[in-house]
Amino acid sequence: MDYRQAGVDIDAGNEVVRRIRTLAQSTNTPGVLSDIGSFGGLFRLDAAGMQDPVLVSSADGVGTKLKVAFMTGEHRTIGRDLVNHCVNDILVQGAEPLFFLDYLATGRLNPDVAVQIVEGLAVACRENGCALLGGETAEMPGFYADGEYDVAGFIVGAVPRARLIDGKTIAAGDVLVGLPSSGLHTNGYSLARRIAFETAGLSHDSRVPELGHATIGDALLVPHRSYLPVIRPLLNTGLIKGMAHITGGGVTENLPRILPVGLHAEISRSSWSVPAIFRWLQATGAVPEADMFRAFNMGIGLIIACAKDNLPALLEQLDSAGEPNAVRIGAVAAGGQGVRYAG
Amino acid sequence: MDYRQAGVDIDAGNEVVRRIRTLAQSTNTPGVLSDIGSFGGLFRLDAAGMQDPVLVSSADGVGTKLKVAFMTGEHRTIGRDLVNHCVNDILVQGAEPLFFLDYLATGRLNPDVAVQIVEGLAVACRENGCALLGGETAEMPGFYADGEYDVAGFIVGAVPRARLIDGKTIAAGDVLVGLPSSGLHTNGYSLARRIAFETAGLSHDSRVPELGHATIGDALLVPHRSYLPVIRPLLNTGLIKGMAHITGGGVTENLPRILPVGLHAEISRSSWSVPAIFRWLQATGAVPEADMFRAFNMGIGLIIACAKDNLPALLEQLDSAGEPNAVRIGAVAAGGQGVRYAG
Repeated sequence: MDYRQAGVDIDAGNEVVRRIRTLAQSTNTPGVLSDIGSFGGLFRLDAAGMQDPVLVSSADGVGTKLKVAFMTGEHRTIGRDLVNHCVNDILVQGAEPLFFLDYLATGRLNPDVAVQIVEGLAVACRENGCALLGGETAEMPGFYADGEYDVAGFIVGAVPRARLIDGKTIAAGDVLVGLPSSGLHTNGYSLARRIAFETAGLSHDSRVPELGHATIGDALLVPHRSYLPVIRPLLNTGLIKGMAHITGGGVTENLPRILPVGLHAEISRSSWSVPAIFRWLQATGAVPEADMFRAFNMGIGLIIACAKDNLPALLEQLDSAGEPNAVRIGAVAAGGQGVRYAG
Repeated sequence: MDYRQAGVDIDAGNEVVRRIRTLAQSTNTPGVLSDIGSFGGLFRLDAAGMQDPVLVSSADGVGTKLKVAFMTGEHRTIGRDLVNHCVNDILVQGAEPLFFLDYLATGRLNPDVAVQIVEGLAVACRENGCALLGGETAEMPGFYADGEYDVAGFIVGAVPRARLIDGKTIAAGDVLVGLPSSGLHTNGYSLARRIAFETAGLSHDSRVPELGHATIGDALLVPHRSYLPVIRPLLNTGLIKGMAHITGGGVTENLPRILPVGLHAEISRSSWSVPAIFRWLQATGAVPEADMFRAFNMGIGLIIACAKDNLPALLEQLDSAGEPNAVRIGAVAAGGQGVRYAG
């Protein structure tokens, strides 16, 4: 018995590695010591000009949004979801990304699919100025159903310690500004898929009148956006007291992560227009409102806390940076904890 | 329909997060800014005294060794496998670990199993002086069979640029020193499981006379060792020209990764004693010799290249550092590429 008979094809793996290497090289930034390819990825931290650097790191997956990719055969958007999710997770603490690594696990390696996934990663890394520094492609017979895979991402960024954004100065009276999401991002897909494909009985290429011309598959696959382009110009302005990335757990679970003890958030649900995809899911699945705000981002992908007096300046700078649709969605108030929703 | 009915239990997830947080805190090192818990993990890079720091990063999984954990119900050793694998992957370039993050994905979250896995990660992080800085625990209904999971690790270390170990100075005539592995480490498990549990028809608690008193399950679960304790004292001696971590692909695929163009390695198979587990697998599975050296580490988990004149000093220092069983296994020779094996 040889290794290939046991379900592992080292040659196919090596072929993927060669194609991935070219994609990864397309993301190189000045820090990558790319002349040295070896067991670990090497990144030269140019600490010149960065006082007391803090590394900020996060690990994430795409969740069951992957199942929508499997249904549609579209494997190029998942990489953007993963990279952008990771970029946002460190951005909310003030960090700009340095490099990213991926972990891709399959039952039987399909080289073309693997390359499509990494193409998406490489595109998103280039968009974020982040090097795709390395990764692991694991062929694990018996772990994943035919044609399925899982993928995880790891990101490292840096911020001068004095410019860490941690929410510690958030106080009662501060305002909360929401930035639009591009869709479901990467959360709530177990519920969304059940509603779309079981309750409503749709197939991925069904069209839903409420969602316009897109198929339900395409509507669910819209990539998670990166907030880096519109937030980066504001990082050194001092306008941002804290930021929450609205991921699994929704506004309800994520906004309190940045609130100091003894404060709660008051959110006005009527302050923004919940996008059609969420309204359709809620109506079709008869999902309680509280569950909607815990499972989905409901159209708000990032929340900024700022002093009330700075609100006009914040909105103006966001507009200049390319985000005209930021909106005040609530305020921070004394007492209690968590999020209270008003109509 | 609510979120829990869709197969995702946020409360169970939060309970796991609470228990994991305590485990992670037990791994804290001075760099961890642990007063700030938020979207990304924060690590203060004390660059004082480190000239031109290079970050070295790697992503890895445990492969189908996980299936042996599932069979035996032993979930505490997997964490050590994962952390030590990652530590070795950056160690071979001269880097000491700073922090580690994990990605744990399951179909339905079993909080006790998740905590056992993270306990193993935390133990190994403490042993390696590496902070468990963060991670992601993903509940993905329909992705993993009942009781199964996948886990990936991500490590970041640092090395002053002048002390990077990259194999560039390796030359014909240099000697190759092998350090013993503790077992299969984390590679070759698809083949090993097929031989043990299909060809030989064993169950995980069967005993194999050739392997002494251990069950086959225990023999296969022996954790991947970390070479950090025995290599760290040598990192600044200049004795080490290059190091290869013998992972997937075995000596055959990994040793050439550090050889400059125009050189090959000559390995004497009789220079060390191949451990019983590999001999038993080879005999039972009738595996060709070449496949054995590509699928398994064959008892050598790390290979050091050093100048011939430095061999006595290297072996003496390894002995002092706690590794008395390092052995010269071959040499570097001019021409060709790859590895040539002699009897």
